[in-house]
Amino acid sequence: MTANSRNGRPAAGRPTLLGQNQYGKAENRVVKITRDGDTHHIKDLNVSVSLSGDMEDVHYSGSNANCLPTDTTKNTVYAFAKEYGIESAEQFGIHLARHFVDSQEPIHRARIRIEEYAWDRIGTSDSNSKFIGADEVQHSFVRRGQEVRTAQITYDGEKWQVFSGLKDLTVMNSTNSEFWGYVKDRYTTLKEAYDRILATQVTGVWRHNWTSDDQRMPNWERSYEKAKQHMLDAFVETYSLSLQQTLYQMGARVINGRSEIDEIRFSLPNKHHFLVDLEPFGLKNDNEVYFAADRPYGLIEATILRDGAEPQIPVDMTNL
Amino acid sequence: MTANSRNGRPAAGRPTLLGQNQYGKAENRVVKITRDGDTHHIKDLNVSVSLSGDMEDVHYSGSNANCLPTDTTKNTVYAFAKEYGIESAEQFGIHLARHFVDSQEPIHRARIRIEEYAWDRIGTSDSNSKFIGADEVQHSFVRRGQEVRTAQITYDGEKWQVFSGLKDLTVMNSTNSEFWGYVKDRYTTLKEAYDRILATQVTGVWRHNWTSDDQRMPNWERSYEKAKQHMLDAFVETYSLSLQQTLYQMGARVINGRSEIDEIRFSLPNKHHFLVDLEPFGLKNDNEVYFAADRPYGLIEATILRDGAEPQIPVDMTNL
Amino acid sequence: MTANSRNGRPAAGRPTLLGQNQYGKAENRVVKITRDGDTHHIKDLNVSVSLSGDMEDVHYSGSNANCLPTDTTKNTVYAFAKEYGIESAEQFGIHLARHFVDSQEPIHRARIRIEEYAWDRIGTSDSNSKFIGADEVQHSFVRRGQEVRTAQITYDGEKWQVFSGLKDLTVMNSTNSEFWGYVKDRYTTLKEAYDRILATQVTGVWRHNWTSDDQRMPNWERSYEKAKQHMLDAFVETYSLSLQQTLYQMGARVINGRSEIDEIRFSLPNKHHFLVDLEPFGLKNDNEVYFAADRPYGLIEATILRDGAEPQIPVDMTNL
Amino acid sequence: MTANSRNGRPAAGRPTLLGQNQYGKAENRVVKITRDGDTHHIKDLNVSVSLSGDMEDVHYSGSNANCLPTDTTKNTVYAFAKEYGIESAEQFGIHLARHFVDSQEPIHRARIRIEEYAWDRIGTSDSNSKFIGADEVQHSFVRRGQEVRTAQITYDGEKWQVFSGLKDLTVMNSTNSEFWGYVKDRYTTLKEAYDRILATQVTGVWRHNWTSDDQRMPNWERSYEKAKQHMLDAFVETYSLSLQQTLYQMGARVINGRSEIDEIRFSLPNKHHFLVDLEPFGLKNDNEVYFAADRPYGLIEATILRDGAEPQIPVDMTNL
Repeated sequence: MTANSRNGRPAAGRPTLLGQNQYGKAENRVVKITRDGDTHHIKDLNVSVSLSGDMEDVHYSGSNANCLPTDTTKNTVYAFAKEYGIESAEQFGIHLARHFVDSQEPIHRARIRIEEYAWDRIGTSDSNSKFIGADEVQHSFVRRGQEVRTAQITYDGEKWQVFSGLKDLTVMNSTNSEFWGYVKDRYTTLKEAYDRILATQVTGVWRHNWTSDDQRMPNWERSYEKAKQHMLDAFVETYSLSLQQTLYQMGARVINGRSEIDEIRFSLPNKHHFLVDLEPFGLKNDNEVYFAADRPYGLIEATILRDGAEPQIPVDMTNL
Repeated sequence: MTANSRNGRPAAGRPTLLGQNQYGKAENRVVKITRDGDTHHIKDLNVSVSLSGDMEDVHYSGSNANCLPTDTTKNTVYAFAKEYGIESAEQFGIHLARHFVDSQEPIHRARIRIEEYAWDRIGTSDSNSKFIGADEVQHSFVRRGQEVRTAQITYDGEKWQVFSGLKDLTVMNSTNSEFWGYVKDRYTTLKEAYDRILATQVTGVWRHNWTSDDQRMPNWERSYEKAKQHMLDAFVETYSLSLQQTLYQMGARVINGRSEIDEIRFSLPNKHHFLVDLEPFGLKNDNEVYFAADRPYGLIEATILRDGAEPQIPVDMTNL
Repeated sequence: MTANSRNGRPAAGRPTLLGQNQYGKAENRVVKITRDGDTHHIKDLNVSVSLSGDMEDVHYSGSNANCLPTDTTKNTVYAFAKEYGIESAEQFGIHLARHFVDSQEPIHRARIRIEEYAWDRIGTSDSNSKFIGADEVQHSFVRRGQEVRTAQITYDGEKWQVFSGLKDLTVMNSTNSEFWGYVKDRYTTLKEAYDRILATQVTGVWRHNWTSDDQRMPNWERSYEKAKQHMLDAFVETYSLSLQQTLYQMGARVINGRSEIDEIRFSLPNKHHFLVDLEPFGLKNDNEVYFAADRPYGLIEATILRDGAEPQIPVDMTNL
Repeated sequence: MTANSRNGRPAAGRPTLLGQNQYGKAENRVVKITRDGDTHHIKDLNVSVSLSGDMEDVHYSGSNANCLPTDTTKNTVYAFAKEYGIESAEQFGIHLARHFVDSQEPIHRARIRIEEYAWDRIGTSDSNSKFIGADEVQHSFVRRGQEVRTAQITYDGEKWQVFSGLKDLTVMNSTNSEFWGYVKDRYTTLKEAYDRILATQVTGVWRHNWTSDDQRMPNWERSYEKAKQHMLDAFVETYSLSLQQTLYQMGARVINGRSEIDEIRFSLPNKHHFLVDLEPFGLKNDNEVYFAADRPYGLIEATILRDGAEPQIPVDMTNL
C-alpha cells in the first residue's frame, strides 16, 4: 500500500495549504562527564531539535523521502556530545544546528533549544574520613536547583540567531517597593501601598548580536554569568514604584553592561505576598506576616532594546 | 520620595528603549453557576488579561498615572461574569477586551486568554433514594478531565482576532500507522516500521475569520464542537505514513469543514510506544506489549491555512 | 576491590540497625493491545514493584547475592503482560506478587502498586468517509482523563491484601451544602454558610476481604465500577452539613453495597469556591460568581469500616 | 432543617463504623519577615494542620458542635507567626500543636506538617551604585531552590513526636559505584557494572528522641544542618556496591553522629544514567555520554534505627 493510494496531495478545489512547520526530537536528556584526572566535570542538558525545509511531501502525502527521522536527531545529540564535547549550551547548539542545515539538502533551518541544569561540588565536613580521602569530593555533586539556564540557537545556512536565558529564578525584596498613583475606575478596590514585598520568578531571554561566523564569538559562559549578575544588581538596587520599573531597570542594566546583547525580554509574575489582617485577633501586623498567594498573579512582560536594534524575540516566547 | 528622584527616564547616552510590553492579572479562576429553576449550569474558566498601550512612563519612571492596576483587571473579570454572564469563553473574552480598550484612554490593545474546564452531570444509579429525589442530580457535576478548551481574544479598538483551541487531548491509533522510506545518514539507526502505534497529545489553536463587529459572529460553542469532531475524524480515518501527514489531514479537515476558520496550528508530540523485546525471555511480541516512553519525544508542529489567508498564529504559541 | 575492604557490616559499638526496607522498579509504563479480530482493546498501566526479605547483606556490605535487580523486576512486568495478559490491574498484580515471592527464596513479601489510565473509543461523525470505513474506529482511542484507577497488591507467601482505589475524581455540588454550628474560638472569623458549593477531588482506597487463594476471587472490574458508582450516588444524594458527613456517607454506601469490601479510606480536599464580593461594584452576587481557590484547602480524611473489620489501610496512604 | 432529619447516625443493621480520621487546613503559605534594624530575615513555610478527637458526630450526623473550622486553624497559623515568631519549623509546629490540643476539649491529637523553603541573600557586584548603597542588600533575597526542608510534629496532650526531614535533594557520584553479583533469573538481562553513575533525589525523614516537655529540647536548626551534612558526607565517601549500601551508610552516619535522632527513613529513587551506545557511529563511549532517564526508576526505601529504638516512621511516609 502506498501513501498516494489513500491520502494524496490536496485535490483541486481543496483550498488548504501548509504554512510554517518544523519537527524534530524534543527533550533529549544528555549528561556529559569530563574527567580531568580524578576531577570530574558535569554538563547536564535537555536538548530539543526543530528542523524546517522542503517538507511539503511528508505533510501532503506521507512520503518521507526528505525526512531525517527524529530518532536520528536524537542520536546526533549524543554523538556530538562525544565528538565536540559540551563547552557551553550555546556552542553545543551551534554545532548541532550547523550540522543539520549543512549536511541535509532539504533542511533549510535548524532551531536548537536547550535547558541546562547546574551542579555544585559537594563539600564534605569530614576531612579525616577513614574510608576515603577528601579528594574524592572531586566526583560528587549536588544539583543547584536555582534557575534553569536556557539557550535557543537558530541557523538558516547563513545567519545565526542566538538567544540565551534563564527561568525559575525566584527573588524577593522585603522592602523598598511601593505602588500608588494608579488609575482608579469603577472596578478598582486596591489600596495604595507604600511599603510592600516585591517578589517574582524571573523568566528572561536575551539576544546576542553575534550573527555570522565572521564575527568573533562571545564567551557564552562568561556572558551568561555577567548578564545574570546585572539583572540581580538591578533588582537589588532599584527602589521600585512598579514591577514594570524594576523590569525595565533589569533589562537596561544588561543592555548597558553587555555590548554583545542587543535585546532582552522578561516575563515577570508578580508573586503577591498579602499582608494578613491580624486585627480580628487583637494583633498588629507591622509588615511582618504575609500570605504567599498562588493565583491569580500580576504578569508583567516587556522587551528592552539597544537603540537601533530590531526586535526579534517573540512576544509569546517567555510567557507562562 | 518621588520616582524621579531615584530612577528617572533613560539618560542621554543610555541607549536603551522599551519594546513590546503588556501587563495584567493572569489566571483568574472564575466559576459561574446559572440556575434554571432547580437545574444548575456551570462555566469554569481560568482568565488571563494582558493590556498594552501608553506605558512608557510606568517602565521608565515608575509613574502609574496610566496604569490600571492588575487587581482591577481581576475585579473586572468577576464583575463581568455577573453583568454579562458567560455564554462562551470567546464571547466573555470579547466583552472584557472591548471594555479595557474602550474605557481606558491609555490602553490600546487588550488580549484575553482563557482556559475552560468542562463538567458533566453525575448520573446516579439509585433512582429510589430515600434521602433525596433523583432530580437532585441537577446540581451535581463531575469534572470531565479530558481536553482543556482554550481561547485568545485580541482587540485593538478596531479589529478583533479570535483564536480558539484545545490542549491535553490524548489520542491513539493502535494500528494503521507506518514509518519508512526516510533519509538515512551516518547517525541513523531507526528500523522501518510497517505497523506501529501512533499516539499524540493534541495542542491545537485555530483562528476565526470574524474580525469586525460588522460581521455576523460565529456560534462559538457549536464551532468548537464541530472543529474538534473534524480533528478526531481525520485522526481516526487517516492511514498514517507519518505524523506530519496525520497532522495535515486534521488541519485540512477543519479548514474544509468550517468556513469560519481560516488557519489552524498544531503541536503534536509523538508519544512513542516502543515494542518491548521479549525474545530474551523466549516470548514473541506480536504487536502486543509496549513501553510508553516519556522523553525524548518527536515533536511535529505545523500551520494549515485556507488558500489566500495570511498566517497570524505565532509559531511559539502552541509549542511545548 | 571487594565491598568488605571498604564498607563492612556495622562494627561493634556502632549501634545502628536496619529496619523495614523494600526495593524494586517503580513506574513501569506498560500498554497492552489485545486484538479481537479488527477490534482492539487497550490496557494502560503504570506498575511499581516493591520487594522485601533477607536484604541485610545488601545494606550492610553491598553484597548483592540476595538481590534480584530492579531491572529484572521491570522485565518481568513486560513479560507477564504477554504471558498472562492484563485482565485487570488487581489480577495482574496478583500474578506478579506471587511470582516474586514464590520464585525467589530471599524475597518474603512483594507489593505491587498500579495506576490505570482509561481509554474510550473515538466516535466518528463521518460514516461515509471515502478514505476508510467506519469500522476502523475499532482501533482509535481517546484517553478518558477523568479519575486514575489504583490498586495495591501485597503477598507474603500465604495471605493476600488487595487495595483498590481511585484518585483525581473531581466532583461538585452547586447547592445542598451548609456549614454552621461549629466551635468558635479567639481565632474564628468564618461566617456560617447556609448554601455553599461543595467540591472535592476524591482520593479513595478500599480493601477487599479476599485474602486467600481458597476464597472465590472478586470480579475486580465489576467491583470497581460498582464501588465508584456508590461513592458518586452518595455524593449526589447527601444533603451536606459538613464534608465529613458527605465522606462518611460515601464510605458507608460502599461498605453497605459491596460485601467484598471491608474498609475504605478517603482523602478529600475541600476545594473552596468563595463567593466573590461584588458589592463594591454595585452588583449583587446571588450565589452565582465564585473564586476557585488553590491553597490553602481544608483536608478531610477518614476510614470507614465494616463492623468487626480490622483497619489495615495506612493513615498516610491517601494523603496529599 | 436539621441534620438528623436527613442523614442520621448509622441505623441498626447498618454495620459501618468510623475509623481513624483527621481534618484541618492544608498548605497555609506563611512568610514571616523579621526586621533587625535594616537587616531583614525571612522564614517561608507551608503549614498543614490535622486534628483528631471526638469527631463521631460530625461524620455521622453533620453536627459541627465539636468542629473547630479549618478556616480557624488557618487563622491560627498566621496569628501565631506574629505571637510566637518562627524560630524554626519544628518550634513553630510545637506551638501550634500544643495550642489545638490544650485549648479545645474535643481535640485529642494535633499533627502539624511543614515544608520550609530557604532563601539566600543576593550578593551584588556593584558596590558603588549611585542609586542605593550596598547595605540595601540586607533586604534582597533569592530562593535557594535546592532541597525543601520538612517537619512533622504530633502531640496527644502528653507526648511529642517530632520528625524532621528533607526532599528534592538531588546528588550524583560520577564514579565509585558498581553493581554486580546479583541474582539472575529467567527475566534477567542486566549487565554487571563496574563503574557507573550513582544519582538519587533524596527524601529523608528522621525522628528525634525528644518526646516530653521535661526533656531538653534539641536545637532544631543546628540539628538539621548537621544531619544533612552527615548524609552528604556518607554519600560522598561511600564506595558504593549498591544504592542500598549507600542508603544504609547515610542513615547510620546520622544515627551515629546525632544523639538526638533515633530513627531515619529514606526513599531513594535510583535516577538512572544510561551509557549511550555510540558504536553505531564509530565512536567509543568511555564513561562520558549518558542518557538521563525519567521512568521507570529503581526505588530503594529503608529505615535505620538506633539499637533498641522502636520504629515509628510510617513505611508510606516518604515514598513517591
